[in-house]
Parts: sequence; structure tokens; C-alpha cells
Amino acid sequence: MDSSLQTPHQPLYRRLAAHYLDAINASTLRAGDRMPSVRELVRQHAVSLSTALQTCRFLENEGWLEARPRSGYFVKAAKRLAVPAITEPDMRKPHDAAQFVGIHEKVSEIISKGQRKIRINLGRAAGAPELYPGKQLNALASRMLRQRPNLFSKQTSPTGNKTFKTVLAKRALSSGMTLNPDDILVTYGCIEALNLALRAVAQPGDVIAVESPTFYGLLQVMESLGMRALEIPTSAQTGISLEALELAMRTTDNIKAVVVVPHLQNPMGSIMPDAHKRRLVALCENHDIALIEDDSYSALVHDGLPLASLKSYDTTDNVIHCASLHKALAPGLRLGWMTAGRWQARVNMLKYAQTRYNDEWSQSVAAEFMASPAYDRHLRQIRTALRTQRDLTADAIATYFPPETRCSLPNGGVSVWVELPTGSSSKKIFEEALKHGILTSPGLLFSNSHRYDHFMRLNCGMPFTDEVTQAYAQLGRIVRDVAG
Amino acid sequence: MDSSLQTPHQPLYRRLAAHYLDAINASTLRAGDRMPSVRELVRQHAVSLSTALQTCRFLENEGWLEARPRSGYFVKAAKRLAVPAITEPDMRKPHDAAQFVGIHEKVSEIISKGQRKIRINLGRAAGAPELYPGKQLNALASRMLRQRPNLFSKQTSPTGNKTFKTVLAKRALSSGMTLNPDDILVTYGCIEALNLALRAVAQPGDVIAVESPTFYGLLQVMESLGMRALEIPTSAQTGISLEALELAMRTTDNIKAVVVVPHLQNPMGSIMPDAHKRRLVALCENHDIALIEDDSYSALVHDGLPLASLKSYDTTDNVIHCASLHKALAPGLRLGWMTAGRWQARVNMLKYAQTRYNDEWSQSVAAEFMASPAYDRHLRQIRTALRTQRDLTADAIATYFPPETRCSLPNGGVSVWVELPTGSSSKKIFEEALKHGILTSPGLLFSNSHRYDHFMRLNCGMPFTDEVTQAYAQLGRIVRDVAG
Ligand SMILES: Cc1ncc(COP(=O)(O)O)c(C=O)c1O
Ligand SMILES: Cc1ncc(COP(=O)(O)O)c(C=O)c1O
Repeated sequence: MDSSLQTPHQPLYRRLAAHYLDAINASTLRAGDRMPSVRELVRQHAVSLSTALQTCRFLENEGWLEARPRSGYFVKAAKRLAVPAITEPDMRKPHDAAQFVGIHEKVSEIISKGQRKIRINLGRAAGAPELYPGKQLNALASRMLRQRPNLFSKQTSPTGNKTFKTVLAKRALSSGMTLNPDDILVTYGCIEALNLALRAVAQPGDVIAVESPTFYGLLQVMESLGMRALEIPTSAQTGISLEALELAMRTTDNIKAVVVVPHLQNPMGSIMPDAHKRRLVALCENHDIALIEDDSYSALVHDGLPLASLKSYDTTDNVIHCASLHKALAPGLRLGWMTAGRWQARVNMLKYAQTRYNDEWSQSVAAEFMASPAYDRHLRQIRTALRTQRDLTADAIATYFPPETRCSLPNGGVSVWVELPTGSSSKKIFEEALKHGILTSPGLLFSNSHRYDHFMRLNCGMPFTDEVTQAYAQLGRIVRDVAG
Repeated sequence: MDSSLQTPHQPLYRRLAAHYLDAINASTLRAGDRMPSVRELVRQHAVSLSTALQTCRFLENEGWLEARPRSGYFVKAAKRLAVPAITEPDMRKPHDAAQFVGIHEKVSEIISKGQRKIRINLGRAAGAPELYPGKQLNALASRMLRQRPNLFSKQTSPTGNKTFKTVLAKRALSSGMTLNPDDILVTYGCIEALNLALRAVAQPGDVIAVESPTFYGLLQVMESLGMRALEIPTSAQTGISLEALELAMRTTDNIKAVVVVPHLQNPMGSIMPDAHKRRLVALCENHDIALIEDDSYSALVHDGLPLASLKSYDTTDNVIHCASLHKALAPGLRLGWMTAGRWQARVNMLKYAQTRYNDEWSQSVAAEFMASPAYDRHLRQIRTALRTQRDLTADAIATYFPPETRCSLPNGGVSVWVELPTGSSSKKIFEEALKHGILTSPGLLFSNSHRYDHFMRLNCGMPFTDEVTQAYAQLGRIVRDVAG
């Protein structure tokens, strides 16, 4: 028997099937290719005839193979390819007049329910712990504790850890940004960076243009600051509509900032084309409106190729770049950072008055890891894992969800965005799924409107165990029930 | 030679002098007591006659002994007793109409200068690293890293670490507060707690009554939130003037909150009498004004006796209690907490939208240490050290500063508040001292007015080495120069 098949705890036919599934996902076997015959399987893997048959039938049932009379089994086109893309919005005009609906109540209701006995968390926007270098970071931290007896008993520098900021500046080069370490402010996650950015450029009552749908954390920040969100149509392919944004700028007073996630937008996964980025930067400049860039996910783009930040097109210090290590390096560390152009002094002061500075230990641990080749190795691994998991997630949706379902196929990140048949209530689905221990992120969280009530964001940051597959099967049943 | 004298790196006579200084500070030798004669010193400590003589002359020069003809050396009354207390303000009326002067510019100028090559940091408001259980915390943290490989790779609970909150609730009992762990919100230091408290109860433009002088961090928070400080006269003995506060409440519109440090106030060290606390709580209740309590220092009161918090007098959920472990447990951890009465849900939401939640690691380390007897042992040690250091600091001020100098003698904490002859510019002193590598906190930071320009806050959280003594001697020369 192949050594690659010696994973315990699963019947042999499932392990053999997994082996061929890997080959399909790696495109070693492509749609239309002939699957080895039952006899060949017996010979090559030293399994019984009945195991070989079970393997092929299982893959057929799961929709990966089709049997052709007298010719054997053939690989079918990946199921995910049958799922249509998310409906494109009308990109010509802004969605709503500026409005301010209490998003927080919705979010906190969802979050407090999410505290219950969750078995499968499809609601979160981070990878599963297995995807992160926990052990390596622990080993680094242990060494640091031995070397620095004062790590917890000494105040750190109020301007942040210089080594860490230097590492960040060096890595930012690949996104086209040339930063001095002193231009970097370390924050408690991207969420604190967004807070400081908005507080630096706007006042309560001011209007902020945001993508629609957008991640609910941003809507919460704005609600907590008394700022009003103007939702701009956003494509799952190319990001925010520049046409609608420009119209909004011409017709709405008091827009003080635009907040955009140019790469792997949350929840849709869109990546803005470079030409759009350039136009967006110019547009904000011309209207004297601050541009706030949220760069939480760029490191998780599947192909690992560098993406030019909005900041890299900025020649007038009008872009505030906010970033996070929470998704890429360590969900257990609250580490983000920002560089704020002409508002740098102001965000520095706001940060000092808000939370002082970040702990020394987390900055040091991150700095050491990120300065080493281990970080790039980790990024390569997590990207590969995320690509496979995205594919398997889309396949599961194709298999178990109603045929009218649409789904994003983002080129990276930890989520897919699912569009259900119009009228399906993602809140009801959320509640039903919770009864089975499955957490989802219902679409209503991603807007102050009801526009996304029939959407949901699902996590694809988890290795695809049987439990996850079963959760998708269960979720599919619930969606069909609720959709009616 | 005594084994207690075998500290290296100092001439023998200095070590012998330190030995007798310890005895004076421990009141084993009191004012008026006869010092052992030179011959006795020779015999008891097996030192040479010249060393014994040098010892007595050194202590005489430093002002600890006086020579009486034909009788030998006698202990003098502690020099600090000769320093008068801080001038009491007129407690009958509020200082200023509500005003809002940019404190931040002053502070950031001072802080950025403080980044330079500092040898002796008399400016900070925390103890020296030696006073904290750094090694014990590191040992705990190392064990935790071995036991929890996912510590950095897994998101923590959005509601905070339950064990930590339980420990905090248990310890709060001794201040008269009965809290449910769920009533506790963990924050990044007391400064974040103050931010959230002010954001919960007031809007930009609102007036907040504060102690005068008050710690500049609070003034910065208010400036950053666009709130206006109304300074209320405050006694170095009994804290905020209730008379002046009541008058202010009757005559000023729009006071939304009062912020008070009832125990070991920063910078003066005052402790409010319990009767004042009760009246203050009632006063705020009657005027429907929120009372925000900053409890950063209570654990550092010299006698270690529990102090009743303002919150313990609160029967209408009108008090927000903010606290910190930064001064008592670990200056290297940004750990604070709060319980917010009727504003609990609102501060929970503001925290989530501001920085999400605190790192799991620091909460776990603190929880484990604080649940063990080691924490109480540490507190006993640090209190003893702080009492000795406060005495030595006051002695040094008595020795080196001009005779008109006044000084607080707080019953705990890490600072003394020094009042220089009127007209002395603490800013000039700050700048001169900086040239000698000595950092101070000039009085102008502690108010939006110029009322404390001739004051300064000095740290007494450092073991009194020769270097510290020399810094005081230097500072005394600078003060005399500037004053004179
Ligand atoms: C687009 C986006 N920005 C910011 C955040 C918050 O990031 P952090 O956890 O670094 O505060 C998230 C997390 O979900 C996100 O998806
Ligand atoms: C009275 C007072 N409150 C709050 C703070 C800030 O505390 P933390 O470091 O816990 O944020 C300080 C620190 O100097 C202080 O003296």
C-alpha cells in the first residue's frame, strides 16, 4: 500500500479517494481524464477489489467522477465551475443617501449568540489555528523570555519597537511603499488603525463612503464614532465602483473619507485592478477627501505575487494605509499597523491617548519571525492550503446548496461570499445552523440596508475534514428548507 | 566584617554607611539616638579606624548625623520632616471657567525630548523594573507556551479571559465591590478604560470636571475627544474639593462627568477620606452626572490596608470604575480593566469597535500570577520598597533643594509632588536636567493653566543608588540656579 495512504482513523477506501481528490485538486487529473481502472487501483495500491470499487463509487457519488459505459470512470469538470459568480450590482450610482442605521445591535446579537457551543465556526474571518506557525512563535517567545527577564516588568518605548517597524517597512517595499520606520504606528489590530484613521480625518456626523457590502467591523467603528456610512456599489470582481463614487462625491456634501479594501475585499474577495487604484487615488485627491486603505489580507493572495497598495500611488500624502498581522501571521496577537501620510502626527497622538503603545513582547516575537525566512515559508504554506480549501468549499456549496446559489471564487483570503436565491433569509439560516453548532456570518451584517439579507459569508480557512463536509451538507439542507 | 556589608563595587565606608542608613530608615536608630562610637565600629565590623571615621563623616556630611563635642555622633531628625507640605489651594470655588487649551502639544514636546539619552528617569509614573516580579512572570509565561501551542495562532474569546475576570472580581471584593466577572471589561491599560468611559457618557464639546492638578494622560484623552476640562481645586491631603465641585455643578452647564483618582492621586498622592467619597458619590448622583473613578494605584498604598472604592458607595450604577495592573503588577503589560455600571453594554461595544479584545497571553499570565500567593508577596515587597524610596527621595529633596521647597509625602505610589519657590520655571529645569540625562515631569503638564509651572513630579519608584543620589544633587543645583 502507498505510504501516502497510511493516514489512520479513516476507512481505506476514503483514504484512497482522498488521494485521488488531491490529484484532481492539484490538476494532476483534469476534467475528462480517465481515472485508473479498478484493476489498476488494485495493482498500484495493493488494495482489494472491493476497496477499489468503493473508492470509485464514493468519488462518483460525491460528484467527482462519472462512469461511462464500457470505458470506466472519468474525471468530471470541477463542480465549483458550475456555480455562477455573484450578481454584479448597478455600478452607475451610489446605493443610498447617507444613512446611519444601528448596525451594532445586529452585530452584537449575532456575536453573543455565537458564544454558544459552536462545533464548526464558518463565521469567522481568519484561518484555523492549524494554518498558523503557533509552535514556531511559541519557541521564539520562550527564547525571548529567557533572554529578557524584564520583558514584563519594564515599560516599552512609547514610539513602538524599532526593529518591528523596520521589518514592516522592509516588507512594505514589495507593495510599492517606501516607508521610514518612524512613519509607522503599531496598533492593536487593523481595527484600531481604522479607528484612528477615521478619528484623524472626520468628526461625528460626517459622511464616510464605504464599499457595499463591507465588513461589519467597519460599520461598527463608524457607528461608535457617530459617523455616517454612504454605501457605494462594489463588484465581486473589480471592487468599488469609481463611477458611483465620483457621482456621490459630486452630489453629497460632507464626505470626509473613503474606506476601501483593495485586495481580497471582505466579504467578496474582489481585487481592484491597478488602473482602478490609480484612478481612485486621483479621484480622492481631486475632491480633497481622505482615502483610507484597509490592507488586512494582501499577504494571503493565492499566487503570492505582490500587489501594489493604494498608498503606492499616493503622491500627496492623502492615503492612510492600515494593515494587520491578524490574518496572515497570528490570530492570537492583536497586531496591526498604519502609516498616515499628512495625518501621521495626529494619529500618533490619538493612539497615545487611546491605548498608549503595544506590548513589547508581541512586537518582538512578530519582528523576529517576520525577519526570518520562516515567515515566507509560512506564507507559501498557508496560501496553498487556502487555495485548496477555497476550492473544496466552493465544491461543497455546488454539491449541497440549491442550484440557484451563486458564490465568489476569490483569489485568496479566508472567506467565500454566497448569494442565495432571493428571499432566503440568511438570519433564519444563521439561527437554524446555530442549533446544529454551525456558526455562519449572515449577509445582513455587511450593510446598513437589507440588500444582503439573502447572502452569507462562509469561512474557508479550515482544513476540510469530514466534520466540515458534514457541516456543509447540513447547511445545504437548512438553506433548502429556508429557501422553501 | 559583617556579611551584610559584602556588597561589591562600593568603597567599604560607603557600604558601612548604607548599613546604618538602613537602620535609620527602619527606625532602629531614631532621631537623638547615639551612633556607635568609632571604636565600636572598628570592633563590631572589623574595619580600620580610618574606615570607621570616614563612615561617620560621610553620614554627617549627608546630614544624617551630627557630631556633639566630646559625646560622639548622634542621629539627626529625618531631614524630610523639615520640608513643608504642598500649599493648600482655595477650596471654595472652581478654578476656571471651562476651557480647553492644547495640552497635547506640551506633552508631546516633553515626551519626544524624553526619548533622548536618559540616564535617570525621574519623569515616569511607574516603579523601576527591579520592583516587579519579572522573572516569576517569565517562568509562568514559559510554562504556558509549552502547554498551549495555539496561544498565538488562535483567536481569543471576544468577551475576554474568564479566569482573569474571575480573579479580578475576587480581588475587587477587598475594595468593597461585588462584581460578576461578566461586569468586567478588560482593556489596554487604564488609559483605554478612561477613553471608553468618557466616550460612553459624553460627547465632543461636553465639560468634564477633573482634579487640579491632574495627570496629563487624562487631559490628553479629553483633548483627543474634544471634551473640555473644568479644573477643580484639589488638596494634597484630602483630594478634590467637594465644595468647589458642588458650586461648579450648580453654575456650569453641560458637565457630563467627574473624573477622580480617589487613592494616591497623580501627581499629589492624596487619599480621599471615606466620608468625602460617600459625599462625592451622592453629589454626582443628585446632579445626574457620571462619576468616573481611576483606581490605578490603590494596590500600592504603603500600609497595604484595603481602601473602599468610590464604586463601593454606588447604589445607582452611576460610577464607572477604571483600574490598571500597569503600576502594581507589570509595567510591560498593557492590562487594565473597568466596570461601567449602567454603561456596561455601551463600553463593551465601544471596546469591541476600538481594539476588539486583549491578547490571550497577557490575560492568562496575569490571571495565574494574581491567583497565587506570589502576588500578595510581591505587593508586600513593592510597598516596603516604595515607602523607603519615598523617604529617601524626600530626604534628598530636603538636602539638595532650596529651603523654600515644599513636597508631598504620599502614603504610597511611585511619585512625589514638589512645589518650588514661586516663579521657578519647571520647564527650564526640565530642559537643563535633560542636558544631564535626567528626565523630570514638569508641573505645566498637569493642568491647562499655568498654575503648576513651578511644580514638578518626581519618581520615587527607583532603588536609591548612588546614581540616583547624584541625580538629586545635580537637580538641586539646577533648581537653585533657575530659581535664583
Ligand atoms: C477588512 C478587515 N479589516 C479589518 C479587520 C479587523 O482586523 P484586526 O483583527 O486586525 O483588528 C478585519 C477582520 O475581520 C477585516 O476583515
Ligand atoms: C492616574 C492614572 N491613570 C491612568 C494612567 C494610565 O494607566 P495605564 O498605563 O494603565 O494606561 C496613569 C499612568 O500614568 C495614571 O497615573
